[in-house]
Amino acid sequence: MTIVKKAFMSIVGAGALAQLLLAAAPVAAEEYSIKDGVLKRPTGYREWIYVGTPVTPNDMNNGKAAFPEHHNVYIDPKSWSHWKDTGKFREGTILIKELVSVGSKAAVSGQGYFQGEFIGLEATIKSKKHFPNEPGNWAYYSFSTKDHKTLAATAKPFPTASCNSCHLASASDDFVFTQYYPVLSAGKAKGESAAGGHDSDLNNSYVEPKGN
Amino acid sequence: MTIVKKAFMSIVGAGALAQLLLAAAPVAAEEYSIKDGVLKRPTGYREWIYVGTPVTPNDMNNGKAAFPEHHNVYIDPKSWSHWKDTGKFREGTILIKELVSVGSKAAVSGQGYFQGEFIGLEATIKSKKHFPNEPGNWAYYSFSTKDHKTLAATAKPFPTASCNSCHLASASDDFVFTQYYPVLSAGKAKGESAAGGHDSDLNNSYVEPKGN
Repeated sequence: MTIVKKAFMSIVGAGALAQLLLAAAPVAAEEYSIKDGVLKRPTGYREWIYVGTPVTPNDMNNGKAAFPEHHNVYIDPKSWSHWKDTGKFREGTILIKELVSVGSKAAVSGQGYFQGEFIGLEATIKSKKHFPNEPGNWAYYSFSTKDHKTLAATAKPFPTASCNSCHLASASDDFVFTQYYPVLSAGKAKGESAAGGHDSDLNNSYVEPKGN
Repeated sequence: MTIVKKAFMSIVGAGALAQLLLAAAPVAAEEYSIKDGVLKRPTGYREWIYVGTPVTPNDMNNGKAAFPEHHNVYIDPKSWSHWKDTGKFREGTILIKELVSVGSKAAVSGQGYFQGEFIGLEATIKSKKHFPNEPGNWAYYSFSTKDHKTLAATAKPFPTASCNSCHLASASDDFVFTQYYPVLSAGKAKGESAAGGHDSDLNNSYVEPKGN
């Protein structure tokens, strides 16, 4: 075999090896499945990254909250990594809002609002590919049913006016209400320290009340 | 070499190989570090599994809540896996309670309590090895400082009477307030479906209010 032929065989060999390695690499799939705009109900989100919980109790909203009642919000792990590295919501970001009833208003820890049962599921996805014409490329979905007893298997996106106008007007960062999600607001582009416990200085504006 | 000697050498060889394999296996370390009872402030818990958020606002507790105000609670991933498989808190379970101020009481989504800034950090660990004499083998720690402005680097466990009596009397499951943590209560020994979105039937007792 000539030296040239030997070198050529080496290159071919290296190429085949690279292809094999690529084939064996984990597939970088998104955490959702959309077909013709219809989103399949996501699963596994309770093992994603939690970002915050607003509570809008029925009893503080004339007996019936628009989104009853606690809202546990999660971001998919790949988009979380991107957020803590860059401070941006990447193409393919999905946020989940799981609705939870108020189970109790008093416990040994005091008066307040304590979570009860799961009563609904909503999602928002940022995708230029799927939603080129939506503001910020965000679309909004709900799997909650009217009686809050079951979840739909699939959901169509809401019309733009239903959700996007409030998110455009009032959300702090790229249509997301990061002002109510301390894990996102404190973790924005903060790298490893975004994961909690790394910093001694809490750097907050909290004023401890007097009394007791 | 005699047959006996050869067999002996094989056994020695197998032992050495087993030792090598053990040394190379991933170390099953816990998510905490305790020395003489003193716990180092845990890190990375915002990437663990979120289980629920009670809120005991200052304004609902005579101006000063015992644990201000939202409490975001997490369990370490290994103990979560064990919980969803067996419905038990394993030896080495750690739960984190991150305290968050009330940032706002009104948003476009309605009236309620919205999370503000991080103001404290607490932890509980179940370990027979470290706490053979504590009820249920649970010990309780706080890294929060009096003014809620910084976190301590280390913490000593509270005396048994400080925390364990309330947890013993009122917590639903092995000293843990699972009744307020829907991810734990709904996910107990439920395997994959504990991670959310797998079941269409929400199986709740919620009654949708009339009106609006």
